[in-house]
This record gives sequence, structure tokens and C-alpha cells, in this order.
Amino acid sequence: MHRYRTHSCGELREANVGETVRLSGWVHRVRDHGGLLFIDLRDHFGLTQCVADPDSPAFAAVEEVRAEWVVRIDGEVKLRTDETVNPGLPTGHVELFVRELEVLGRSRELPMPVFGEPDYPEDTRLRYRFIDLRRETLHRNIVRRGEIISSMRRRMVESGFMEFQTPILTASSPEGARDFLVPSRLHPGSFYALPQAPQQFKQLIMMSGFDRYFQIAPCFRDEDPRADRLPGEFYQLDVEMSFVEQEDVFSATEPVIRGLFEEFAQGRPVTETMPRIPYAEAIRKYGSDKPDLRNPIVMSEVTEQFAGSGFKVFAGMIEADPKTEVWAIPAKGGGSRAFCDRMNSWAQGEGQPGLGYIFFRDGEGAGPIAKNIGPERTAAIRDGLGLGDGDAVFFVAGDPRKFADFAGKARQKAGEDLGLVDEDRFELAWIVDFPMYEWDEEEEKVDFSHNPFSMPQGGLEALENGNPLDLKAYQYDIVCNGYEIASGAIRNHEPEIMKRAFAIAGYGETVLEERFGALYRAFQYGAPPHGGMAAGIDRIVMLLCGAKNLREVTLFPMNQQAEDLLMGAPSEVSAKQLRELSIRLSLPES
Amino acid sequence: MHRYRTHSCGELREANVGETVRLSGWVHRVRDHGGLLFIDLRDHFGLTQCVADPDSPAFAAVEEVRAEWVVRIDGEVKLRTDETVNPGLPTGHVELFVRELEVLGRSRELPMPVFGEPDYPEDTRLRYRFIDLRRETLHRNIVRRGEIISSMRRRMVESGFMEFQTPILTASSPEGARDFLVPSRLHPGSFYALPQAPQQFKQLIMMSGFDRYFQIAPCFRDEDPRADRLPGEFYQLDVEMSFVEQEDVFSATEPVIRGLFEEFAQGRPVTETMPRIPYAEAIRKYGSDKPDLRNPIVMSEVTEQFAGSGFKVFAGMIEADPKTEVWAIPAKGGGSRAFCDRMNSWAQGEGQPGLGYIFFRDGEGAGPIAKNIGPERTAAIRDGLGLGDGDAVFFVAGDPRKFADFAGKARQKAGEDLGLVDEDRFELAWIVDFPMYEWDEEEEKVDFSHNPFSMPQGGLEALENGNPLDLKAYQYDIVCNGYEIASGAIRNHEPEIMKRAFAIAGYGETVLEERFGALYRAFQYGAPPHGGMAAGIDRIVMLLCGAKNLREVTLFPMNQQAEDLLMGAPSEVSAKQLRELSIRLSLPES
Repeated sequence: MHRYRTHSCGELREANVGETVRLSGWVHRVRDHGGLLFIDLRDHFGLTQCVADPDSPAFAAVEEVRAEWVVRIDGEVKLRTDETVNPGLPTGHVELFVRELEVLGRSRELPMPVFGEPDYPEDTRLRYRFIDLRRETLHRNIVRRGEIISSMRRRMVESGFMEFQTPILTASSPEGARDFLVPSRLHPGSFYALPQAPQQFKQLIMMSGFDRYFQIAPCFRDEDPRADRLPGEFYQLDVEMSFVEQEDVFSATEPVIRGLFEEFAQGRPVTETMPRIPYAEAIRKYGSDKPDLRNPIVMSEVTEQFAGSGFKVFAGMIEADPKTEVWAIPAKGGGSRAFCDRMNSWAQGEGQPGLGYIFFRDGEGAGPIAKNIGPERTAAIRDGLGLGDGDAVFFVAGDPRKFADFAGKARQKAGEDLGLVDEDRFELAWIVDFPMYEWDEEEEKVDFSHNPFSMPQGGLEALENGNPLDLKAYQYDIVCNGYEIASGAIRNHEPEIMKRAFAIAGYGETVLEERFGALYRAFQYGAPPHGGMAAGIDRIVMLLCGAKNLREVTLFPMNQQAEDLLMGAPSEVSAKQLRELSIRLSLPES
Repeated sequence: MHRYRTHSCGELREANVGETVRLSGWVHRVRDHGGLLFIDLRDHFGLTQCVADPDSPAFAAVEEVRAEWVVRIDGEVKLRTDETVNPGLPTGHVELFVRELEVLGRSRELPMPVFGEPDYPEDTRLRYRFIDLRRETLHRNIVRRGEIISSMRRRMVESGFMEFQTPILTASSPEGARDFLVPSRLHPGSFYALPQAPQQFKQLIMMSGFDRYFQIAPCFRDEDPRADRLPGEFYQLDVEMSFVEQEDVFSATEPVIRGLFEEFAQGRPVTETMPRIPYAEAIRKYGSDKPDLRNPIVMSEVTEQFAGSGFKVFAGMIEADPKTEVWAIPAKGGGSRAFCDRMNSWAQGEGQPGLGYIFFRDGEGAGPIAKNIGPERTAAIRDGLGLGDGDAVFFVAGDPRKFADFAGKARQKAGEDLGLVDEDRFELAWIVDFPMYEWDEEEEKVDFSHNPFSMPQGGLEALENGNPLDLKAYQYDIVCNGYEIASGAIRNHEPEIMKRAFAIAGYGETVLEERFGALYRAFQYGAPPHGGMAAGIDRIVMLLCGAKNLREVTLFPMNQQAEDLLMGAPSEVSAKQLRELSIRLSLPES
């Protein structure tokens, strides 16, 4: 017999009845039922009920065990009586009659229980992560995370991609966020940096003649704590392909992402064919470049209904500034003064002066705006939006570049509060045609809106002849349920176009050489057209697990203060270590 | 037609003759054969010969291209004439008649060629790694590396292991080497460390109730440059299992490692069943705990043949010190004075006084030792070792703990110089029963010989009653062709045994708490018996690729001075960055 187990704790069935078996696991729970002692024995695979009566030679030993002790139990598999069958448990038709019990690992008094899933302070949970991870939900999330990443890899390999490991000790990367630095001992005064993403490396892999790269890549950003980011490190599915256009990247990666969602959706519907929504359209329809498409609300422009109307606020704005637009946010089922007032108060809480609305009842529009613009325009708005009695519509007006973000929030708020958003589905879409440049209000200049290495649509000619702010890039995102889950681009592989693109944003060739040396050098020695994307693994796992927090899908996460409470990091180091690294502390005055 | 290619450069065959196709790739070589221009077009998948005659509309364009330009070529697939068929190339039966050529990426004059594989200075190769990686051998090595790791993963998943990602920003780890440190911006004066190995994490994963862990894990050690190590980072296949004994680890991992070697051995034989060689036996037979088992030489002890013999040097040592042993290194085919003298000179070069020998000819032993010990003892040695005319035997004498290492080198030297080592095979073996403790000569105390967390054989009782220096641990290595390729242990999961084991090496419980806090804490809350191993991926890939250097199997390696010449790391950082990290430089006086 094996030293520790003949079966796992999730394995015994009716067919095993009568067998003498050996299990090992954690004591999930001990119960005393009128002299009978029950142990729920738990391991990674499941739970088995073990029972000892006072005649059992192991009764005394069973009496002694406590929750979370690790024990080995030998015994005989017995059928449970009909009344005691637990149909919710795969092993629920049998129990193990304890003949022998060996304690393999004792436990002190627990700082938090494993049985049940009560809320415990996060600090305790992180400090005792090895106990927290035994709890059902977290354990299952981590297993699912492993399965998701494993499936991702399988799908990428099956699609002809090859995984490469890019360096983790490297040079400062120009992704825009702050680098983690690593002092070099052998080169005093010099530092390595941890990669914010393997962006330059994956492009260099293409220049090196490898055709289809992917990596489950650890990325590092020294950012200030944010609720929706893990501090320190995160993982992305990093992808790059040579000799491709945007359409090729889509047809290579969409089946991987969609297939992954389908595999782990547990029956929840997943978008069949991902729609492609131009960035400008996403902003106008949803007020966001990461729209939640489970929300059926689609905004539309209704400026003409307000131009010259009796609603002087909007009419005046339209007259004063030709850039003014009025957008309507239709809200099916929101047609009550109470709901409209709640939305209005919410808008004020968001720093807006308010949120204009009309709601429809008894065949006509109600509220101050309806009164001001009159029944004809009110009816035109209602009919244009396909609304009727019991519905409402909200309005935002001004320069769309300034209000679009708020309009998007109002759309989401209305959709959620009215129960229009179907939580149990995954709505995926490509957002395409991102602008190449944007206007930097602070610096009062044109700057790159995203990745400076994206290929501008129209190439050199468009750069030379077009208005930079009208230029689109071959740049795209994948969004799911309101989250950006992937982002990519066809890269600019031509040094001439690159120099011109940087010049438009006010950067000379020296910037290219200094900040992107390796990449810019490589472009000079035979660069293939290439493109790719990177998908945020932690976020995808969070969505698929239905978790509310990235820490719930990460094995050993740091807390929001970027501290690892389990391992005690960061921590002080010795004077000798500092000396070896040729650095000294220079602490802020307290 | 696709914008860049209808086929890869490795795809065209006779069946495609007559088709109009499009290829994209690098100009591997241009040749001018009496007015006909040939381009060997190369991509990741292969090479296709393209040809243009002066009538081709693309002739002028073809005339202009240079090596390593990236071009798109449209043309017609033609059968080559019998004389021009290249059977060494999969596409060698056809060529592409060029109708149109588009330059996709020009190249400046190359710092080194891709065509042919001449030696170039390593600095140039590393600085222009993206060019070096296009060269056949290196390109193939990196592809093979990807395939090997992918196969490793597949085999681990199929064996029921699950991959987990452990943190890279963590606390200083006690593996013994120097940590890379990362200053914390949010916690001035504190530092993260990069993991030397996920040792503590993988044990914590077991305490967390996951059953079978693996990871292709990046590891980091700030060591001084060594020829057989990559500076900075390396990868290991990290494995851990719960509720196992040593035998379970062997039966789970041996098929993975052996299968991997078999898959990538390209026909070279691989050990069928890995022998298990106790550490002490390995030392006595091979003078090494990582013996090259392709070398058939097995050493044996022949002390009795020298005790009281006429060879006074050895006889005197044996009499003076009962610890003295004489070991014989038999060398089939080494039976000439010339060879024996060469071995003797080599030994002197190794800092030894010399290397005693007997060689056999004309039915008797020759050389000074044979003369001194006489024909009877000489014959006994010869017969005991199964030697005969034309063979030799070398002798080392003294305290085996001191000479074993040198004896091992002499064994390997003799084996290699005599051509006894079959280069084209993989000899795998387990080395088992490593000693738990060793005598630290410098500190004059008992200390751990390897991992302090290995379980001592015999448990608490052995610790309490045995001589520490006789204790074995459940600790094992896998060796291949003279390299240690994996190392592992059954862990000590019992706090009581751990305290005792540390006490023997002179460490109190505070050392456990301070240096191994998380792990030691976790042991107190229900720890399962567990064990595992870690295999060195870079070395395995190197062996399987037949590469002589780890840089030849690593995508973007640093040089031996721990510099990344491609990316320019490490480099200086700005005063602002240092200020944010609350550190200052403290450069050594020059």
C-alpha cells in the first residue's frame, strides 16, 4: 500500500464499497454526533466523510485531531444509508470507517477558518495566504487560472505560434509607466530595469526572422496603487506576427480569445463573431472605447432637435459654438420622475451641473425639457429613439470630446440601474481605427495617442498631407463587458515613416535613437512588416472566474500598498548588500 | 491574393509548378550567373530560389536588392532542370520566376553576414543579435528551445501537474547565492528581491493544498561571471508534489525527462531506465556526484595491493593513516609509456605531484610501480580490473575525501583521450542518498551539505542518535553526460525535525524564523509530506542542441560581464529616478 494514499479524497464511489483504502488530507471539519466522530477529510481533489465509533481502534486518535491537521486515514469504504447520502458531494454516497489514523502534520490554532467562507480582514488573509488558498472559492479560482493559461498556450501552439522567453533583467523601457530598477553590482552606478512589457523584444524577434511569437509574459510597472491593477507584476499573453495586416492578426487571435471564453464560460453565452467597432463610433454610441455591449443602450446625436428650440440652455450653446452637440441616452423602462431625478442627482455627484431628461407617459413627454422644446420636437426625439410610454431619455450637451466620457458613464449607470445589462454573458468586440495622435492640452501640442510604433493608416503620404489629428492608426483593442482585455497594432517597420511620425509629435531622430535604440537600429537592417497584440491575462481570468478583485485570481499577490505580507517584502537589507551595489539610502526627512 | 504571401519560403514543391504565387522574406543571397539573377529568399520556414532574366519586368528591381533586404516577390513556380535541382533543399526542385518585386524593408551594410556561418566577435553578435539570430544554427537552436519547453509543459500537464506563476518581486531568499535587489519607491529604504528559485513558494503551494505543481520558472542570481552559467537569469522546470515519497517523485518525473531526451535526441540513444546510484558509490566509482556515464571507466579500491608492498610511498601512507586508500583508474587501450607519461604530466599541471601507473605489455606490468610491488601484486591488480596487454591503470592514494575530485577528473581525462566516451548518446542517472551534513573545514563545524529543508533519512530518531556526518537525506540529482541537470528532495515538513536538524548545524529557531519566516510559519498550520525537484532548462536545451555555450541556446543573453549589448543594459538612470527610490549612488573611489 502506498505510504500516504491509495485514493484521493475526491475519488471514492459506491463501486469502492468494501475496499480497504488509505486517504491523506486536511481535517476540514470534525463533528461529534452522539458518540460517533465524523471527519470531513479534504485534499485538492475533494472531500470524503470519515467516521469512527467508540469501537474503532482509532477512536482515541480521531478524538484528538483538530481542524486543518494533516492526517492519513486507513479504513473500510462503507455505503451511506439513504438518509445520510449527500448528493451534493461526488463522494457523498460512501463514507470511510476509520481503522487507523496517523497525524502527518499538526496545526496550531488557526488565524482564520478554512471551513465555510466568512470574510476575514485582507491583511490576515494575505499573511496566511497558505491557509486562505485552501478555501473553496480561492482554491477553485487559482485552479481555473492555471487551466485558462494552459488552454491559452495550447491554442497558441495549435495556431502555429512558438513561445519565447524574453529577458527580465533588461534596459529601461519606454512604455510610459515607471520602471522597477535593479542596481548592477558588477557595473557600479548602472541599473537594469524590469520590462514593462516585452514590446521591443517581440518586435526584435520579428526582425530576427521568427514568424509567430507568443509568450505568457510577466510585466512590471512601478505604479501608484489602483484598485483595478495589481501592484508590481502582472501577466499578459503577448503575441507578434510577421508579414501580416490587421486582418491577419484578427483571424489568428480572435479564435484563441473567443475559444478561451467559450471554454471557460460555463454555459454563459459568448459573442459568436466579434463586431469591429471603429473608435469614433464607439465613442459616439457608447461614450467609451471599452463599451459594455451587454448594455443595449445606444446613444445618438439629437443636436438638430435642440437648435433654435425653446430649451435655451442647449439652444444657446449650439448657437454660440458650432462644435456643440447634444447626445441622447435612451433609457427603456426609465420613464418615471423618481428614476430621472435619481439619475440627475447621480450626475451632480459626478461633478456635472445635472442631467437633462424627458420621460414619457400617457402618450406624451414630461419634464422641463419636454415643456421647453414642445410636443413636436419631443415626439421626434421619442420616435427617433424608438421610445414610448414608460421610457426616458437623458441628454448631454457641449463639446463631445469633453462630455463623451461622462455620457458613457450615464449610459452604463442607466443600463445597470434599469436591469438592462445581462450579467451572465460575455460580449466581445474589436475596437479599431484608434486615432494616431491627440491634442495634448497641457503641452499645447500634437502627441501620440497610444503606441508611437503603430503604423499610421495611409502611410507616409497620409503623414505628410493629412491633418495629424484626423489620422488613424492600425491600432485595435479587444473589449469584453466594459473592460479592455487586449490591445495591439500593426507596427511601423519603416524608418522613414517612423522619423516622420515622430517629427509630427515634435520628436527628432535622436529621441528614436536614445529611447528606442535597439529597435530603431534593427529597423535599419531588413525589417519585415509585422503586428500583434497583448491580452491582459489577470483581467481575463477575473472575468471568467466572476471575481471582483485581481487578488482573488492571483496566487501570492501583494496588497494595495505593494507589500507581500506573506514573505515580508519589501524589507530592509544589510549595509553590506548596499555597499556591494554601490548605493546608499537617501531617506526622505520625516 | 494576400498582401505579403501565398506561401512560405519553405513550402513550394513540384505540385505547385505553373502556379502564380507570392513570397516574402529576406534576401539570403543574390547571385549573378551570366545575366541571370538569382535570389535565395529566406524566411522562418525555409529558402526558395527566385530567378529573373533580363526579360523579366522586375529585372531592374532585382538588380538593386542587397543581402538581408526584406522583399515581396510575385512570380510563377517553375520546375528546375535536372542539373540545377538542389536535393538538399525541400524546395530544391522548383524555383520562382520573378514577375514583380517590392522592397518591404531595406538594410544598411551588414555588421556581419547571415549567409554562411563564419565566426564573428561575440560583442558584434550580441549587439546585432537580431541579425545573428537569423543565422541557421542559432535560429534552429532557439526554435528547438521553444519546442523542448513546449514539450516539457505538455508532458507535465499530461502527468497531472498544474502550472502556477509565483512572484518575481519578492523577499530575499535564502538559497545561498546573492540576490538581485529592487528598491521600493513606495517604501523608502526597503527592497524587493528577485527569486533565486521559487523554492519557498512551491513548498507554500503544497501547504495551500494544491497537489502537483510545476512551473517553467525564471530564476535570478547575482553571481560573478562563470563560463558555465548565464549571468543574471536562467530557467528551471520547477516541480513539487504532496503526499509523496522519493519513489513517487522519481516515477512522476523520470518519464518526463527521459521522454524529453528521447524526443529531441535525434536518434541518439537515451538511457532506457535511469540507474539509481548512491552518492557514496558515485564518488567511489566515478570520483564525482555528476559522473559522465558514457565513460566506461569504473574506479575501484586496491589499497590491500599496496599495504606492506614494495612501493614505499603508498605503503607508508597506508601505515601512517588508516584513512588512506588507494584507488585504481583502469584505462583500456592506454597501455603505452607515452600515454601514461602524458597523463602524469597532465596531473602535474593539475597541481598533483604526479599520477602513478602500471601499463601492461608482453604479459606483464611495466613502469616503476609494477617494479616496486612485484609481479604477483601487479597481476592481481590486472586481473581484478579485467585488464590485459595494451591497457593501463592509474593510481591515486590518500584521504579519499581529498583526492576523489581529482580521481574523477583523471577518469574523465583518460576516457576522453582514449576515445572511450561515446559522444553520441545521453546517459541519464539518478544520484541518490546525498549526505545531510558535511564538515565545514573553515568554520570547523557541521553544516548542511545541500538544502537545509531536505528530510533526513531516519527522521527525528536518526538526528538524535546518529553521527550527523553519516546521515543521508532524501535528496537526489539527475545527471546526464557529466552534468547535473536536476536536483530535488523530499522536504522536511515537520517543525520538530526541522528544529533539531537546524540545531545540529548550530542554528537556533530564530534563524528559522528570521530567514525562512513564511515557510516556517506555514509548517505550523497543517503541512503535508511533500517533495519535488528542479531541472535546469538552459543546460538541458544546450545538451540536446549539442551547443557548447548557454548563449547559443538563449534568445537575448547577456555577455559574460552581465551586460545586454543589444538593449544597452545596465545603464545610468536619472537623478529623478534615484530620488524617487530614496537612494543615492555611492561609487567606489577609482
